[in-house]
Amino acid sequence: MNQISQENIQVGEIANGLPLTIPVYRMMGNGSGPKVYIQANMHGAEVQGNAVIYQLLEQLKQLTLASDITLVPYANPIGCNQKSGEFTLGRFDPITGTNWNRMYHDHSALVSEFVDKHLHDSLDEIKQQFRALLVGQTQTLLDRPAHNINTGQRIALNLQRLAHEADIVLDLHTGPISAKHLYCPEYAKASASYFDIEHVLLIPDEFGGALDEASFCPWWSLQQAFAKRGRDLPVMVEAFTVELGSQERIDLAEAKLDAQSILSYLTHKEVLLNSPYQPANITRYGCMLKDYVAYYAPMGGMVEYTAHLGAHVKAGETIAHILRMERYLSEQPLQPVHIEQDAIAILHFASASVNQGTELYKFFTNYFELN
Amino acid sequence: MNQISQENIQVGEIANGLPLTIPVYRMMGNGSGPKVYIQANMHGAEVQGNAVIYQLLEQLKQLTLASDITLVPYANPIGCNQKSGEFTLGRFDPITGTNWNRMYHDHSALVSEFVDKHLHDSLDEIKQQFRALLVGQTQTLLDRPAHNINTGQRIALNLQRLAHEADIVLDLHTGPISAKHLYCPEYAKASASYFDIEHVLLIPDEFGGALDEASFCPWWSLQQAFAKRGRDLPVMVEAFTVELGSQERIDLAEAKLDAQSILSYLTHKEVLLNSPYQPANITRYGCMLKDYVAYYAPMGGMVEYTAHLGAHVKAGETIAHILRMERYLSEQPLQPVHIEQDAIAILHFASASVNQGTELYKFFTNYFELN
Amino acid sequence: MNQISQENIQVGEIANGLPLTIPVYRMMGNGSGPKVYIQANMHGAEVQGNAVIYQLLEQLKQLTLASDITLVPYANPIGCNQKSGEFTLGRFDPITGTNWNRMYHDHSALVSEFVDKHLHDSLDEIKQQFRALLVGQTQTLLDRPAHNINTGQRIALNLQRLAHEADIVLDLHTGPISAKHLYCPEYAKASASYFDIEHVLLIPDEFGGALDEASFCPWWSLQQAFAKRGRDLPVMVEAFTVELGSQERIDLAEAKLDAQSILSYLTHKEVLLNSPYQPANITRYGCMLKDYVAYYAPMGGMVEYTAHLGAHVKAGETIAHILRMERYLSEQPLQPVHIEQDAIAILHFASASVNQGTELYKFFTNYFELN
Amino acid sequence: MNQISQENIQVGEIANGLPLTIPVYRMMGNGSGPKVYIQANMHGAEVQGNAVIYQLLEQLKQLTLASDITLVPYANPIGCNQKSGEFTLGRFDPITGTNWNRMYHDHSALVSEFVDKHLHDSLDEIKQQFRALLVGQTQTLLDRPAHNINTGQRIALNLQRLAHEADIVLDLHTGPISAKHLYCPEYAKASASYFDIEHVLLIPDEFGGALDEASFCPWWSLQQAFAKRGRDLPVMVEAFTVELGSQERIDLAEAKLDAQSILSYLTHKEVLLNSPYQPANITRYGCMLKDYVAYYAPMGGMVEYTAHLGAHVKAGETIAHILRMERYLSEQPLQPVHIEQDAIAILHFASASVNQGTELYKFFTNYFELN
Repeated sequence: MNQISQENIQVGEIANGLPLTIPVYRMMGNGSGPKVYIQANMHGAEVQGNAVIYQLLEQLKQLTLASDITLVPYANPIGCNQKSGEFTLGRFDPITGTNWNRMYHDHSALVSEFVDKHLHDSLDEIKQQFRALLVGQTQTLLDRPAHNINTGQRIALNLQRLAHEADIVLDLHTGPISAKHLYCPEYAKASASYFDIEHVLLIPDEFGGALDEASFCPWWSLQQAFAKRGRDLPVMVEAFTVELGSQERIDLAEAKLDAQSILSYLTHKEVLLNSPYQPANITRYGCMLKDYVAYYAPMGGMVEYTAHLGAHVKAGETIAHILRMERYLSEQPLQPVHIEQDAIAILHFASASVNQGTELYKFFTNYFELN
Repeated sequence: MNQISQENIQVGEIANGLPLTIPVYRMMGNGSGPKVYIQANMHGAEVQGNAVIYQLLEQLKQLTLASDITLVPYANPIGCNQKSGEFTLGRFDPITGTNWNRMYHDHSALVSEFVDKHLHDSLDEIKQQFRALLVGQTQTLLDRPAHNINTGQRIALNLQRLAHEADIVLDLHTGPISAKHLYCPEYAKASASYFDIEHVLLIPDEFGGALDEASFCPWWSLQQAFAKRGRDLPVMVEAFTVELGSQERIDLAEAKLDAQSILSYLTHKEVLLNSPYQPANITRYGCMLKDYVAYYAPMGGMVEYTAHLGAHVKAGETIAHILRMERYLSEQPLQPVHIEQDAIAILHFASASVNQGTELYKFFTNYFELN
Repeated sequence: MNQISQENIQVGEIANGLPLTIPVYRMMGNGSGPKVYIQANMHGAEVQGNAVIYQLLEQLKQLTLASDITLVPYANPIGCNQKSGEFTLGRFDPITGTNWNRMYHDHSALVSEFVDKHLHDSLDEIKQQFRALLVGQTQTLLDRPAHNINTGQRIALNLQRLAHEADIVLDLHTGPISAKHLYCPEYAKASASYFDIEHVLLIPDEFGGALDEASFCPWWSLQQAFAKRGRDLPVMVEAFTVELGSQERIDLAEAKLDAQSILSYLTHKEVLLNSPYQPANITRYGCMLKDYVAYYAPMGGMVEYTAHLGAHVKAGETIAHILRMERYLSEQPLQPVHIEQDAIAILHFASASVNQGTELYKFFTNYFELN
Repeated sequence: MNQISQENIQVGEIANGLPLTIPVYRMMGNGSGPKVYIQANMHGAEVQGNAVIYQLLEQLKQLTLASDITLVPYANPIGCNQKSGEFTLGRFDPITGTNWNRMYHDHSALVSEFVDKHLHDSLDEIKQQFRALLVGQTQTLLDRPAHNINTGQRIALNLQRLAHEADIVLDLHTGPISAKHLYCPEYAKASASYFDIEHVLLIPDEFGGALDEASFCPWWSLQQAFAKRGRDLPVMVEAFTVELGSQERIDLAEAKLDAQSILSYLTHKEVLLNSPYQPANITRYGCMLKDYVAYYAPMGGMVEYTAHLGAHVKAGETIAHILRMERYLSEQPLQPVHIEQDAIAILHFASASVNQGTELYKFFTNYFELN
């Protein structure tokens, strides 16, 4: 049985002066494999990742570990506990509106000077030095005077410092009402086949503020900068956002399947020794991020969502009905909404009430089979 | 084809000075049957009643009507449009916290004087005069200086004035995540068998502020007051709160079934002539309101709801798991929650995140078969 | 220098499993005076009471105490930390809408049986036994299975248990934008003159769920029940809600004045020995609770509040302008709003944006000088 | 007396199917002066701009106009009516968190091709053609299929289309609790002296999504692009965000002063003929946008703001006290907060309750006198 240790790190203070803490669980491997960092619940309503971490811990304590693994449930103690009505209002800071998963720091600007200095170093040396730089710079940001750091940044930087220690970073999220899907950097496409997730978004080297990007962008930029200088390196870190399904829902059986999917990927990455976990034999579909399109409500009303999540819908098919009882006599009160192109329905809005322009659905378009 | 007319009544004004209006649809019968009033969506997230009104209109325009029928979707234009995050925050006034369905007026205090005056009048006379009194007094409340009426009262009184015109009042609601159930005044128990709803709450003559109570309490008090004076009258009005299922969900097929259930009841009440609608052959369970018990979360955590809604659970059965990842090492992180007595699970909380003391479930206890 | 001790009591758990705690500060007197309980910030935005408790502690540690004093800042750790936008949304439970200060328990039903039992006991015996009964019954409510107690009740009952230990209970609140005022039970009118508060609401023996009522109603009922049995007792407990001014504002200098006002009252009650605190020489105005009237916005719009808080306005005076720019051309866009009767303006709404029916002001009417 | 016309433009639909409309007021000049566009209340709580528009209309109808003037109060009918508790939650879309004033479109990408085409055209021709391009492209964005446009973009684009018709654009905002200040593009610095506003932020040619930027960035880029091609043009449009003071407050007398300040600027720009309005003789201070610094709460607690808004504070001065009653015994419960450098306090947070990292203040640093 592997030992699990717990540390509670402080990431802020609330108005009555009490500390905001996050529990950090750690298991140690024999040191031969890549280090792993997994967090969940950065967005308050996206709770299922906590159940996946539970199921991962239950499995991991019985496996042989090559790697150190860090697991962080309840990554955002503000979002997690912010109710508005019955639901958890945890997608953005209730004070500023800023999405909690857009506050990480992009360290890519460090690359250029680093490459100058380490152009001829060994791969191991580069990896170790660049990691130390990322961790150190994140710590430096945290060490600034307290009045220079806002609430969300302090949470994000504390998590990012932990994530930069790892070679593999998984940020567990969910959509509103959603099919499972994976945000995967283009360079790591091959790894996507080890997750039991049918829908894979391939994302470019562009920083938008999220943890996966904060984790891989500097390493991807590093690889590109070395390439420009004629040296061919691998991207040494992999980071994914794993979208587990729908928010506001705990399903322990499903969490076990998701844990197994992650263990299958970790087996592939040689984090686990003698591990039985294998990917499922399913067809996986890829979509470039630019082809992941939002479909906004073309009118206000009450929505019946008719596209099954994960369904491959054809151009012209009805994806929703919008009921407008204000106009029962003056126009057709039940308006069908059509999709214009072939697509896979990935997620839809969590409420049945929409303003004109509310994001109704997100679709994979121009999708393709991944091998 | 029956004619449907629309009127938009103004029930308030918002901060930019624009009017708040509610659409009122009316159909006329031949006058031989009891008048009907049906409204929906007093609570903002409880949208399915609008779809039921849509399906009712679609059916009613093809039927032969003995009665005038008034249908009011979007009964609460503030609640309906009040978002907080993705969800509709429409259970209570966002300014005061007052439940929108607790702001109707109890006219029962009018009964005593009325009985003195009309002790020997004919039943028809009594019905007509008492109705006129209720409508008139509601109008009088609305006619007070504007600065005496708060936002919710103005909406409620406008609706109540319409409801008092009717002999049959249906207020369409939903639970959070919920099985269908019916709030039925004890005296109208026999009518419950004409709805296709398995779960029936029998409520006493106590006013709590809701529309069904505001509609039937004065008439029930009237019947009791006459009885005390030795005259035996029927309760001349029936009013129900129909709980259609879960909030934040439009399901047109389900709405059609619910419309048929209501049409079956209206057929029984001779609102419809030559109507084919008959109640389904299902077992119905009754529960006294005092036995309708809330089960609060015994600890804070993330909840997996395991009791199926509508399920008859036995004392000692597990109804939920509460996941507490903060304490993975220090205690059992997955806590089963048990029910203490036999019960039917009627509804559960809409979110998977609960504080200690959040209402987790509501159960029928001491339930019985209704005939 | 008096010793101050701190205890943190747990009053709940939040969704990530962490405890909700409240700090309780205690100072011990020589036992000759009445016990005192003071709490603040039950409503999240009403923060000034914490500053008053700070100033009280600063003074009290230098005074000679006849009594034990318990002081509880941050009485509601949920309300205190519940933001929605920039402001603290802490007047009601964000999930249910229930006002946090309406969840205390009324123990008045215990009176009848108690009087039967203790009709001929000594005053001291009665006081001690009835207090033990109130504390014990509150504890019994807390000791019920956890699933029977909702979030707000658990907080309220924990505080109420502390309050029942005391002879003097002060619950520190604020209005939205408000002049200072005092909720004072009618029987304690004489005590009102020891606070430096110009506006005094005299409240009857009716329980509405608030802490002051929960504290004095049982004792007042006890006095009345004994009186009916021919025995004349004093009401042995005094409890007040002290409205300190406006919410969302900390003013340490003002807090010092308010602390001195409370110390003046405590001096009068012989809580403090050799205390220099004396009430200010100001005119105090009383108003019966039934004459404390809300003035709702007669139309929607943007409000300029023109009545000075604390001002004695005359019938017919303008108390606000409502700007309605939607109708600049079609009607007078700037509407004056008048008061119908002589009144003292006590508080007004916190926002400049109102719906028709939003509570604009609260006024003392039929007010009188208190001696 | 000048004629004022009103048009209501539809900018969306809410969930009950009702249209969202904005009132647009227009006055016609003799055509000799620059066209003017003024809007207010894009952020829901920032209501004072409506009062300024009221006062402007009252003045303008009596003046001689050289220019067409368009005035739009209540620019955001969602934000304006979105309550959460007592306050207006209108800084960001309650569903997405996106700031309503970050959804305008940057047309600067059109500049390069335009300059190629119009390099040798007359100034008038360039102005007319580029304006037509901006208006046309904005309309094209609005004419896309409805499902391509989100709620905030539809509101913003409708306003932006109106703004692009004008040579002078004023967007009336307020801070939370704030001194008056002006966002002024660097090239228009000279114009800042015609407003009666002491604090002027000089902003560079960088687009952040706000209306002032959307209005001037394309014209500024145009000027720069022509300059690169050797042709010296003026920037032909001026656009400002005018910060009127504090949110949630209507003050008609202050609004009249602000209207006069705007009329003084419009007099300078020859919008008004024979106008008596002159700027006040005050010292104005400038600050580069990069030197406008946020000061975040270094700890959680209750805040007393001690820096007077508009005050010139010196390095080391106390700007706030943070009260932490949770720690009365274990540390200094009243923590002074100091500023590190000389600064002008421009605004502070609206609430007295802060988490660690909440934006406490914004300061002008490295400020200078403007001539």
